[in-house]
Amino acid sequence: MKLWEKNSKLNKQIEQYTVGNDPKLDLNLVKYDCIASIAHAKMLHKIGILAKEELDKLEAELKNIIKLYHDGKFVIKLEDEDCHTAIENHLIKKLGNIGKKIHTARSRNDQVLTALRLYSKDKLKHIEKAVLELVASLKKLGVKHNSVEMPGYTHSRKAMPYTVGKYFGAFKDSLQDDLKLLATSYELIDQNPLGSAAGYGVNLNVDKKMTTKLLNFAKVQHNELYCQNSRGKFESIVLFALDQIMLDLGKLAGDLILFSMDEFGYFKLPEEFCTGSSIMPHKKNPDVLELMRAKASVVNSYVFQVINIINGLQSGFNRDFQLTKEPLMKGLEITLDSVKVMNLVLSGIKVNKENCKKACTREIYSVNKANELVKKGMPFRDAYKKLK
Amino acid sequence: MKLWEKNSKLNKQIEQYTVGNDPKLDLNLVKYDCIASIAHAKMLHKIGILAKEELDKLEAELKNIIKLYHDGKFVIKLEDEDCHTAIENHLIKKLGNIGKKIHTARSRNDQVLTALRLYSKDKLKHIEKAVLELVASLKKLGVKHNSVEMPGYTHSRKAMPYTVGKYFGAFKDSLQDDLKLLATSYELIDQNPLGSAAGYGVNLNVDKKMTTKLLNFAKVQHNELYCQNSRGKFESIVLFALDQIMLDLGKLAGDLILFSMDEFGYFKLPEEFCTGSSIMPHKKNPDVLELMRAKASVVNSYVFQVINIINGLQSGFNRDFQLTKEPLMKGLEITLDSVKVMNLVLSGIKVNKENCKKACTREIYSVNKANELVKKGMPFRDAYKKLK
Amino acid sequence: MKLWEKNSKLNKQIEQYTVGNDPKLDLNLVKYDCIASIAHAKMLHKIGILAKEELDKLEAELKNIIKLYHDGKFVIKLEDEDCHTAIENHLIKKLGNIGKKIHTARSRNDQVLTALRLYSKDKLKHIEKAVLELVASLKKLGVKHNSVEMPGYTHSRKAMPYTVGKYFGAFKDSLQDDLKLLATSYELIDQNPLGSAAGYGVNLNVDKKMTTKLLNFAKVQHNELYCQNSRGKFESIVLFALDQIMLDLGKLAGDLILFSMDEFGYFKLPEEFCTGSSIMPHKKNPDVLELMRAKASVVNSYVFQVINIINGLQSGFNRDFQLTKEPLMKGLEITLDSVKVMNLVLSGIKVNKENCKKACTREIYSVNKANELVKKGMPFRDAYKKLK
Amino acid sequence: MKLWEKNSKLNKQIEQYTVGNDPKLDLNLVKYDCIASIAHAKMLHKIGILAKEELDKLEAELKNIIKLYHDGKFVIKLEDEDCHTAIENHLIKKLGNIGKKIHTARSRNDQVLTALRLYSKDKLKHIEKAVLELVASLKKLGVKHNSVEMPGYTHSRKAMPYTVGKYFGAFKDSLQDDLKLLATSYELIDQNPLGSAAGYGVNLNVDKKMTTKLLNFAKVQHNELYCQNSRGKFESIVLFALDQIMLDLGKLAGDLILFSMDEFGYFKLPEEFCTGSSIMPHKKNPDVLELMRAKASVVNSYVFQVINIINGLQSGFNRDFQLTKEPLMKGLEITLDSVKVMNLVLSGIKVNKENCKKACTREIYSVNKANELVKKGMPFRDAYKKLK
Repeated sequence: MKLWEKNSKLNKQIEQYTVGNDPKLDLNLVKYDCIASIAHAKMLHKIGILAKEELDKLEAELKNIIKLYHDGKFVIKLEDEDCHTAIENHLIKKLGNIGKKIHTARSRNDQVLTALRLYSKDKLKHIEKAVLELVASLKKLGVKHNSVEMPGYTHSRKAMPYTVGKYFGAFKDSLQDDLKLLATSYELIDQNPLGSAAGYGVNLNVDKKMTTKLLNFAKVQHNELYCQNSRGKFESIVLFALDQIMLDLGKLAGDLILFSMDEFGYFKLPEEFCTGSSIMPHKKNPDVLELMRAKASVVNSYVFQVINIINGLQSGFNRDFQLTKEPLMKGLEITLDSVKVMNLVLSGIKVNKENCKKACTREIYSVNKANELVKKGMPFRDAYKKLK
Repeated sequence: MKLWEKNSKLNKQIEQYTVGNDPKLDLNLVKYDCIASIAHAKMLHKIGILAKEELDKLEAELKNIIKLYHDGKFVIKLEDEDCHTAIENHLIKKLGNIGKKIHTARSRNDQVLTALRLYSKDKLKHIEKAVLELVASLKKLGVKHNSVEMPGYTHSRKAMPYTVGKYFGAFKDSLQDDLKLLATSYELIDQNPLGSAAGYGVNLNVDKKMTTKLLNFAKVQHNELYCQNSRGKFESIVLFALDQIMLDLGKLAGDLILFSMDEFGYFKLPEEFCTGSSIMPHKKNPDVLELMRAKASVVNSYVFQVINIINGLQSGFNRDFQLTKEPLMKGLEITLDSVKVMNLVLSGIKVNKENCKKACTREIYSVNKANELVKKGMPFRDAYKKLK
Repeated sequence: MKLWEKNSKLNKQIEQYTVGNDPKLDLNLVKYDCIASIAHAKMLHKIGILAKEELDKLEAELKNIIKLYHDGKFVIKLEDEDCHTAIENHLIKKLGNIGKKIHTARSRNDQVLTALRLYSKDKLKHIEKAVLELVASLKKLGVKHNSVEMPGYTHSRKAMPYTVGKYFGAFKDSLQDDLKLLATSYELIDQNPLGSAAGYGVNLNVDKKMTTKLLNFAKVQHNELYCQNSRGKFESIVLFALDQIMLDLGKLAGDLILFSMDEFGYFKLPEEFCTGSSIMPHKKNPDVLELMRAKASVVNSYVFQVINIINGLQSGFNRDFQLTKEPLMKGLEITLDSVKVMNLVLSGIKVNKENCKKACTREIYSVNKANELVKKGMPFRDAYKKLK
Repeated sequence: MKLWEKNSKLNKQIEQYTVGNDPKLDLNLVKYDCIASIAHAKMLHKIGILAKEELDKLEAELKNIIKLYHDGKFVIKLEDEDCHTAIENHLIKKLGNIGKKIHTARSRNDQVLTALRLYSKDKLKHIEKAVLELVASLKKLGVKHNSVEMPGYTHSRKAMPYTVGKYFGAFKDSLQDDLKLLATSYELIDQNPLGSAAGYGVNLNVDKKMTTKLLNFAKVQHNELYCQNSRGKFESIVLFALDQIMLDLGKLAGDLILFSMDEFGYFKLPEEFCTGSSIMPHKKNPDVLELMRAKASVVNSYVFQVINIINGLQSGFNRDFQLTKEPLMKGLEITLDSVKVMNLVLSGIKVNKENCKKACTREIYSVNKANELVKKGMPFRDAYKKLK
């Protein structure tokens, strides 16, 4: 049963179209919605809406829902639309009138926002940790191959001598910069929207500071309309930070595919990381890297998808926002998986020093030679021309 | 078991990352892959690879797989990677050596292409039919409200008088143009890639004309490399044609949301198409239209996603292609659903003639008045200035 | 002076912001707007708005404007906003009252549409011709290198033997398919919007068939609102057709960059097509191909720029449409240039047969060997496993 | 003359295609390239490549070039390709051998990076200042209309009462959050790439710390390859920060267009901010807001244009990077202009208190009523149902 159930029943086809895959996606939010509801109940108790006993029962049942969810036993039915409705219905079924009080002073609009932010903050913490591990791996590779010379390329042509260590170092530095963007996106979403209700507050004495503290948000997001206007906006900012990480992984994946071709042979993927062909017995393919490259493009398209959806909307909540959930959730999951898998790949990759050395052919030292002439006093441009 | 199973086992984490949600998506392809395999088997029989008895057994078992699939009993396991492997494994399990012969003269690369095109052609036919029905509804609305005057808007400001009939007519004409693009996308994918194998053919006397006829393709796609290079490209073209339909629906949805606001009141959605609010008892919301508008943006992002994935890839098959399946399938499904739902919405929508009439305020007839002066001989620009 | 000049002057900062670079872009449209105005004037004469003598003077002066434009002497001032205003102002200055009549029964809205379509049709014809020339070049290359063996790649790994001829043939076929999409986009824009005025017609007996014939459009675009709603929509369809061509060129460019690396050496760019480095004396860089690859991405972004702009707009003209002009014009120009430059590149490219042959190493014949066993009666899957 | 001029002349058509509009765009960089060159020369003096007298002459002439540029007298010819070449050629022409020394220990690759970052930092400072001014205006509006009630909307339907002051406050808070993202993008690009040369350093004892201090960068970007790999990446991050500002402006613009329709009448644009129609004497159009909305979409497309261009490129410099300059420069300019114009618009906008009040119809107080029942002890869900 929907929270807003009317006399005339919603058309079935329209119900299916509007609910979409929310019941499935919202499983990701059950835990966070319960945590937020506990904080909300505590606040309602403080401002006199809930008695202590009512609060205790609600808290116990909300914790029970979290347990049910972890045991795979909490179900969101199509008729329930989303996790928020399923949870309220569950509370009413179990606690009667007490359950009917939980939605005081809030709307699904601020409820979704709160749950999504708690969920996202959690995921971002995991991603940050995984990126730091990847950075550590790249640092180790940098040290290990510190003195292995390989050709540096410009315009896809051998340019000047570089080292394998510094090659990996470039990605380490890039990911460290990405973490700054990730931290900013985290800081931006770390604002408590609970109590903004439908986007215009309520005529009750809501204590936002209290829920902010209970939910471990850095601050209150005061302007209620901005709470709603930041839906999608914040998602796009989080996804863009993920996108930068993914673009780095995609670039590294592309390089590794190239440099592990027989024609180069600088790197080698272990066999247990390679897949084969259905027709060609000899093939060993770097599918894992190809898919990582492709997933970078996918996450990139999610940024665009979210902005596409929200761009042009009137201020305040619009149902369009619902469709920003999927790209956000997928983007977070893909990024976490990809960072971990790249770390695994780097743990197995072999550097073929001989091939690297052999590829450092004479011409890539042309600038060095020009600089020798410079040191002897020849203007650089003359030295350059002499060596052309 | 994978078709290419090697001695060293594929790392589990990498297996999961590379297989992704193929087992789920590929359920959409089982039927089409079996149909294509039957045609392939007939061809192998013709060129002497399969005996008549072998062909018969393969055909019977492939038809059985289709039946299993329809009964929800055909399962694609993670270890099987995709439907193609699951089907070959099933055939080998049931038919032994005969099953081991089915993959002669083909690769998964051309197999996927073939199945995807048969699948897409089928879906496109359904979409075309649904769009034609929607066109018919719009035509009917056009006739019905032929003489109901409403204001035409430019710059979101009342501009000149128009009619409700012609308003709906604009969308009818637009969708009819979209059908031309849809037909072109259909024509482009209506080429048989079967026999191109991994993208470079095989040294067997494959009869592509025969499978083309059996599978009801319009022609052979001769160049084997082009078969692979058109992967993703064709998907993007199909999605772009769908995108145009969706953009029309999104535009119509946006208009209907606006014009059914109380501030306009030109149109009214029946209550059984509206949803409510969790906090505001009075609300009747046009969620179905908001989501349609958002889904237009989503399908648009799929075009971009597919092009993002394939742009920059070396010629020939790359595993990146795998990720173009999901946006294609989702795009086809969303479009079909949306066209049908819009048709449903239009069947219920009410035109409030009085409000339309009332909104036709004096100023929107300013051009008419200028033209009256023109008819009396005044140059238009002077008449315009006089009326300013 | 603006056509709509009011008593209160438009704020200067806002004038600059709204006019933007229209005066520059619109130079591309002067000729087409004059041609359309001549047809419009003839129609106005036919329906009795203009006397024969007035028509003759207007026609002569409009032809004079075309001449002035070709001589670089027709100027569009910021205060004139656009070419349409500049032309009307010019006519009024030269012909007085006669000039004041030209805008009868039309708006800038249908005027812009008409001029843009005439302009686009012209450019599309040039692009079609250039693509056909490129197709011919690819065909010639295909025949010339028909029997030169080179490795075909999958997953960026050598897969099976192919030929240089067929390699180029893949791009020939792809471009030929692109021409079908181009033709559809041409067909869609080949509709006459003149007479739709601001998007809601006028109360004058406009003869749209007459202008359709005079302007060589295939048909009338009857629904006036659809004329406006197709603005941006049609641009996106044209750009998408160009995008497909550009993506093909970008893919070919990427391949040529790769295969002309010393590590492959299959192709070689003549020196007069290569650029150098400011610091490295030895470099010969394929900048032309890198930029073509990048321009494919740029044109791709134009498709989404246009859709971005129009997505979410209310029906009817919105000033947002103005910004779709630049991506359309640039997209047409970049594509025309790129097709021609690719043709030039192909005219100079050298195929190194020896390197191609040498690269055809033993393992790429593994399928051939498996098929030999198949011919002797071994099931393919067993042959495959034997050769692994 | 190009820096890398070879014996065989570059083909004219290819020269035009590759140089593109760099000579025009690079005018924006002349000043910054000269400033960077002065710092570079000082460093070359310190490490013994340039004598004090040589340094002095170079510094004087570089300052002279800045002056010439400000006087509109510094020209970049097509044959010069870009500002870097034009400047070196100028120096050689004026100073002979001394000019030939300036390019020691650097490449155009790090030169472009340095100039672009100095340019971008400058522009970002201006944008930050303009946004702060807009924030101040919004704050003032918020205070001024603090107690003016207007309806808050959800699903484009009147929802609950809000105030005009808080309405503007939502945008103030949003822009303040945008400034955090802007600051992060500034911090990321505030790294000195000078001395990384072509992306692989040089065998000279370059003092990067010295140039970092002279150019007022926050730190050295040590890894030379990362300097190149961050090209495009950093541009996309800057553009995304601008995009968020533009999306806010676009949203505000869209709201203002809607709420200033006669059907709402909450706001009114002064006449000197409105434009008219070529055909309809009565029209007053909000073109400035429509174009701002459209420009938000344009800047959004620039983010994806840049990522499109760099996605999939091999590590190290690729000429594709050249095409990231235009979207960056345009994005910075459009954003700066738009923020200023929005500030102007807000300075003139009128709030119609009566219309705002009148629109606060009975139903939007339904939650308030429900809460009154809640205060009397009724569970919220029951109160909600009672009021439905």
